[in-house]
Amino acid sequence: MGAQSGPVLRVALVGAGFMGRAHSHAWRTAGSFFDLPRRPELAVLVGRDRERADALGAGFGWREVSTDWRDVVARDDVDVVDICTPGDLHAEIAVAALEAGKHVLCEKPLANSVEEAETMTAAAAAAARRSGTVAMCGFSYRRTPALALARELLAAGALGEVRHVRAQYLQDWLVDPDAPMTWRLDAAKAGSGTLGDIGAHSIDTAQWLLGSPIRDVSAVLRTFVPTRPTLTEQVGLGGRGRVEGEREAVTVDDAAAFTARFATGALGVFEATRMATGRRNANRIEINGTLGSVAFDYERSNELEVYDATAPGPAGFRRVLATEPEHPYMSAWWPTGHGIGYEHGFTHQVVDLVRAIAGQGEASPSFAEALQVQRVLDAVQRSAADESRLTSVALD
Amino acid sequence: MGAQSGPVLRVALVGAGFMGRAHSHAWRTAGSFFDLPRRPELAVLVGRDRERADALGAGFGWREVSTDWRDVVARDDVDVVDICTPGDLHAEIAVAALEAGKHVLCEKPLANSVEEAETMTAAAAAAARRSGTVAMCGFSYRRTPALALARELLAAGALGEVRHVRAQYLQDWLVDPDAPMTWRLDAAKAGSGTLGDIGAHSIDTAQWLLGSPIRDVSAVLRTFVPTRPTLTEQVGLGGRGRVEGEREAVTVDDAAAFTARFATGALGVFEATRMATGRRNANRIEINGTLGSVAFDYERSNELEVYDATAPGPAGFRRVLATEPEHPYMSAWWPTGHGIGYEHGFTHQVVDLVRAIAGQGEASPSFAEALQVQRVLDAVQRSAADESRLTSVALD
Amino acid sequence: MGAQSGPVLRVALVGAGFMGRAHSHAWRTAGSFFDLPRRPELAVLVGRDRERADALGAGFGWREVSTDWRDVVARDDVDVVDICTPGDLHAEIAVAALEAGKHVLCEKPLANSVEEAETMTAAAAAAARRSGTVAMCGFSYRRTPALALARELLAAGALGEVRHVRAQYLQDWLVDPDAPMTWRLDAAKAGSGTLGDIGAHSIDTAQWLLGSPIRDVSAVLRTFVPTRPTLTEQVGLGGRGRVEGEREAVTVDDAAAFTARFATGALGVFEATRMATGRRNANRIEINGTLGSVAFDYERSNELEVYDATAPGPAGFRRVLATEPEHPYMSAWWPTGHGIGYEHGFTHQVVDLVRAIAGQGEASPSFAEALQVQRVLDAVQRSAADESRLTSVALD
Amino acid sequence: MGAQSGPVLRVALVGAGFMGRAHSHAWRTAGSFFDLPRRPELAVLVGRDRERADALGAGFGWREVSTDWRDVVARDDVDVVDICTPGDLHAEIAVAALEAGKHVLCEKPLANSVEEAETMTAAAAAAARRSGTVAMCGFSYRRTPALALARELLAAGALGEVRHVRAQYLQDWLVDPDAPMTWRLDAAKAGSGTLGDIGAHSIDTAQWLLGSPIRDVSAVLRTFVPTRPTLTEQVGLGGRGRVEGEREAVTVDDAAAFTARFATGALGVFEATRMATGRRNANRIEINGTLGSVAFDYERSNELEVYDATAPGPAGFRRVLATEPEHPYMSAWWPTGHGIGYEHGFTHQVVDLVRAIAGQGEASPSFAEALQVQRVLDAVQRSAADESRLTSVALD
Repeated sequence: MGAQSGPVLRVALVGAGFMGRAHSHAWRTAGSFFDLPRRPELAVLVGRDRERADALGAGFGWREVSTDWRDVVARDDVDVVDICTPGDLHAEIAVAALEAGKHVLCEKPLANSVEEAETMTAAAAAAARRSGTVAMCGFSYRRTPALALARELLAAGALGEVRHVRAQYLQDWLVDPDAPMTWRLDAAKAGSGTLGDIGAHSIDTAQWLLGSPIRDVSAVLRTFVPTRPTLTEQVGLGGRGRVEGEREAVTVDDAAAFTARFATGALGVFEATRMATGRRNANRIEINGTLGSVAFDYERSNELEVYDATAPGPAGFRRVLATEPEHPYMSAWWPTGHGIGYEHGFTHQVVDLVRAIAGQGEASPSFAEALQVQRVLDAVQRSAADESRLTSVALD
Repeated sequence: MGAQSGPVLRVALVGAGFMGRAHSHAWRTAGSFFDLPRRPELAVLVGRDRERADALGAGFGWREVSTDWRDVVARDDVDVVDICTPGDLHAEIAVAALEAGKHVLCEKPLANSVEEAETMTAAAAAAARRSGTVAMCGFSYRRTPALALARELLAAGALGEVRHVRAQYLQDWLVDPDAPMTWRLDAAKAGSGTLGDIGAHSIDTAQWLLGSPIRDVSAVLRTFVPTRPTLTEQVGLGGRGRVEGEREAVTVDDAAAFTARFATGALGVFEATRMATGRRNANRIEINGTLGSVAFDYERSNELEVYDATAPGPAGFRRVLATEPEHPYMSAWWPTGHGIGYEHGFTHQVVDLVRAIAGQGEASPSFAEALQVQRVLDAVQRSAADESRLTSVALD
Repeated sequence: MGAQSGPVLRVALVGAGFMGRAHSHAWRTAGSFFDLPRRPELAVLVGRDRERADALGAGFGWREVSTDWRDVVARDDVDVVDICTPGDLHAEIAVAALEAGKHVLCEKPLANSVEEAETMTAAAAAAARRSGTVAMCGFSYRRTPALALARELLAAGALGEVRHVRAQYLQDWLVDPDAPMTWRLDAAKAGSGTLGDIGAHSIDTAQWLLGSPIRDVSAVLRTFVPTRPTLTEQVGLGGRGRVEGEREAVTVDDAAAFTARFATGALGVFEATRMATGRRNANRIEINGTLGSVAFDYERSNELEVYDATAPGPAGFRRVLATEPEHPYMSAWWPTGHGIGYEHGFTHQVVDLVRAIAGQGEASPSFAEALQVQRVLDAVQRSAADESRLTSVALD
Repeated sequence: MGAQSGPVLRVALVGAGFMGRAHSHAWRTAGSFFDLPRRPELAVLVGRDRERADALGAGFGWREVSTDWRDVVARDDVDVVDICTPGDLHAEIAVAALEAGKHVLCEKPLANSVEEAETMTAAAAAAARRSGTVAMCGFSYRRTPALALARELLAAGALGEVRHVRAQYLQDWLVDPDAPMTWRLDAAKAGSGTLGDIGAHSIDTAQWLLGSPIRDVSAVLRTFVPTRPTLTEQVGLGGRGRVEGEREAVTVDDAAAFTARFATGALGVFEATRMATGRRNANRIEINGTLGSVAFDYERSNELEVYDATAPGPAGFRRVLATEPEHPYMSAWWPTGHGIGYEHGFTHQVVDLVRAIAGQGEASPSFAEALQVQRVLDAVQRSAADESRLTSVALD
């Protein structure tokens, strides 16, 4: 049973799109199911589009709605700034908020470039020293109980020494060459395409599960559909909408594939695409160690497959329903076998952030960890531009 | 994007246990994601245990907390009474609320006996005539998108004539003979055991999917563990808790199995148990028609298996992720492939109820439909007591 | 590596249909992969249709082909009679062969009636006493490695006390009401329909896995399609063929469902049908005990799902590929992970029979065990004819 | 029903190990189930180890056993030479047999180097011109019905334009660093390690399914366990055996990973390893086209997952049991839903080869196709040695 205590934590959320909705729900719900040391208050919602922001604000009970993030992040009556904008605004908002002494939660990927990410990380470090602020990047898949359970197993050494990581993030919403242009396909807004949007998740998940960074990569990027029709009116999610005759250039990758070497020596094979017809959200990772393996597919997000080579009895991958009270986050929810959904990852993220703000545990991933993801993305792009040559990830 | 409009709908919720929590969340969340013609207000929460009720009330922002349901259901400033108590209180509360002109949502099974269910159904009919009140029973699995999709396929005739229904509801939380006694194992409180608790879900789901009632049954009930330790202090869900040396008699079934004939002639095979080691919440149903089949397992609640014998190409069961915008309820949630969880069924139930109250669609299942489930439960018990002999379900 | 030694074992096979082919392959192949204490020789193949028998005889190298089983089973140069005819001939051939001192392998179900099965069992017992002949019934699914592994687990007590058996045998080759009439749908030839053809497998498998007989049943039988077109010329398997205008009465069941109580107290739920659209050969069984469970589906015949409630680590059903050298029968075949097929069950059956003939182990199932299956079939039919009333299986 | 007609085809098989056994079974079995235009005769088995060869010869009824392949391939009474030796002997035996005018079936990979493969391909071409001999390489997975069905779908354009190929071949029999040394880990014998042994299968399967060659690759190879104990006495398959204290150098790769570009522009991601703990024989391939996808895993070798984006009704991957009479090779076997096993691929290979010899269809893969696989293997090794740089596959 959730219980909130301690001081109020006044939240400003910037971004009133799909992510803003997921975060709004999380801020409102976390304290209803989890014991929190602070009481989050949905203080200010910021959106560029007033009508849309008003609707979201009313839907979740935001106390106030604004269209000016600069004003909001500086206000005294705000404690946390939660950034859900496209990537090109992350750095500016985050740095402003940190300089104003706010705790920051920033959606992934941290930035559109390593330079921005470095600036943000430096700002976070300075703010932490100055005022103890917490900065965290929103790789919310870390909060999927099945993956968090995998992390526990790996951290406990249950898989032995890891040799293989194979991660795929397969979607199919761009298969149709006439699916319209969106900001996610514009390098200026999104930094990269599939790579930064979903490939970044795989990179973060893999490095986190192994507790080891990627050291070098050999990569290929591919854009299968180089132009797409201009979207004149946004309707709904996923790029659906009304379309006119003109086409714009897609300036990002549709697919990314790379091999990787982790610091521990493990060999990684990564693939991300939005062209995998029939795969809706197959965020998959499998890890093989000397003593066991784990495998996960987000299309069955409540399950973890676990192979324990040391277990007695007939050997096989166990289909673990990660819904037991002893599994991460799950004691707050429903009886065993009753699954949870996508938004729960965001709720758990809020729980962990609020606890970190209260000094209970570390904010994870920190901006520094997210910067490491950014550096891997950068190395991938450099390798792809250099005939797939083995390319080192920049060190700190 | 959810939007609430029209008059406020003031809700009183009776029951501060696990179900009370699920319903609280649903009442608060429905309008944030769905367009509702009324604005639900979490007005009064009623619980016998003041401390527990206060905690739940605070957790979800209930305006008021009470320990006296009699007082609350008669109040002028309450529009809907939502009943989440054990089954032995359903009839009394529902009838009082209906007589006071309130809309009623009552958890399943509708009652502990056919007689009670008949009384409630008569009260609902009278109230509907008198004041247009809506009464609905909470078989929330109807609101699982995958099952609602199955219903659409069946209603459209996509499966042809149905021949087979095979439904299993398998749990395992009572495997341990020393799992403690709870009210769910006491016939006086719960009416029946596994049969009414989870078997009732299978019966409702099957009758609803087929659009056809069960006409007769041949049944067996079984209690594998006849006594259980007394629970002296409740801790957490699922009967976990501190245990003393004494044991009490279990007065309900641990497992139920029966064959059934539907009005259409379809043959049903049903099984419900809490003794299926390793099956946490395997609420399964498969339906075979002359043109196709569907299969569902709640342990993978976002999936529906669909077999279409008329489809071109290689034949096989399709694993349908019921997460597309065109699937029931799903346009309100996340991008395709991002699943939802257990509590969403309750949220959808609130959506449908609120719409029914506003005259948009029927409340389903009505008390009359839930009474039919009760009559099947009764026929199952009578058959089991009569050497499994074929026993007719009472007609209206 | 297979090696055959010891005296030659001269085999006469009666029946040149689909089963005759499977058995021919088995007799020829067993010694190539397994060490056998006798050297099977494909001596005489008997078929009513000379052309068909000649073709099968040539295809597998039978030394001789005959159309007269009476003559063959009495010959001095025959040691084993393998009966693959429709059920109405089993008793006559088996008794003749046993009286002539031959070892007998008889396809399942043992007979078309309890009376025949009793006669056969008595003949087998007399022949065993008289001349040490071995008699065995061909429930070949016992020789599926995954099921044999399940048997090992159950025999070792790994599942604890068994509470639940749920067995389904689902096929769909009769879904079409215009699929033609065959001998399998004629009670005079086949005894019963789905019940005896595939339901018998489930009964044998369940009793064998539990090591406990079924004591009473409550059953329903159903014929969904009461007449079918006359087949004027057989072409291929599965009832395919040319069809004329006339229709004949189907005199057997299309589907059978029953609950059962085992001697140990376990509760069984059985269903068999050829009307489960989309299920080609889903011979499924799940067993839940106090310490664990196993689940099997012949559509994935190389796998066994195993749940061990006592295992350390996260709990879940293990998908065991029953292809390890330490699994039953598998050291004779391919490297781990390389599955085997349907005919291997027959090959393993020959291996076990030849070993039993040489005094290495028991022939299993004996005619007495197969008679017990027949008695369950009979009780199912009697219960179905008596309003599903609980009906005892006859005792020896 | 199989039927053999036409002239006898006298087969000499070189190699009495695991592969020799699989091929022996195939030569004996093909004509029993399939109609063949030639009658294969198991004429001569050649093995270096006389005792082992004698045992295999007796087990499958080889007319003659020899230890001298040079003598055998030149004999007048041999029509086909089937080569099942380690890769270092392929070229010499194949060239000798071809020059003697024999048809040749050679196990994969075709050779240990591109040079050898080129020599063999030239010899095959010359022999074909000279005497119409047929030469075929034994990529037997092409004969798995589920994969052959995938090939039919792709050839018919059912998947549209292919964008993605993702192929993994995962085994785990070398996870243990103390699993002993075998010839498969010796570059001099085996050419390469995992890459040539199982990665070659993935390459062949992918190129064959797409009908398009790989043009360039970027690769990494890895040896996780650089030394292994010397095996002093071979016992059983899979490298099991008695082990002494000394260790030898492993001179091949344990794992290979590479990205690839097909001539059509499709992007491939390949991974092969014997270190994927828990994966016994996961030979997987998934192909995504603009109109659909297929996915396969040899651990469930009787299934093909098919996604058809153009199909009506709810969308999802279909689990197709590739056991229907209309599926490749399956009309010869059992009723639908009754799977087949590993050795059937070899039986089908014999069927196709015998038909090609009789002028019915092409031998596939030809030596030229197998040479293309060899060239890809070579490009992979060159890229891996050159910092994973994009490396072109040599053209003809």
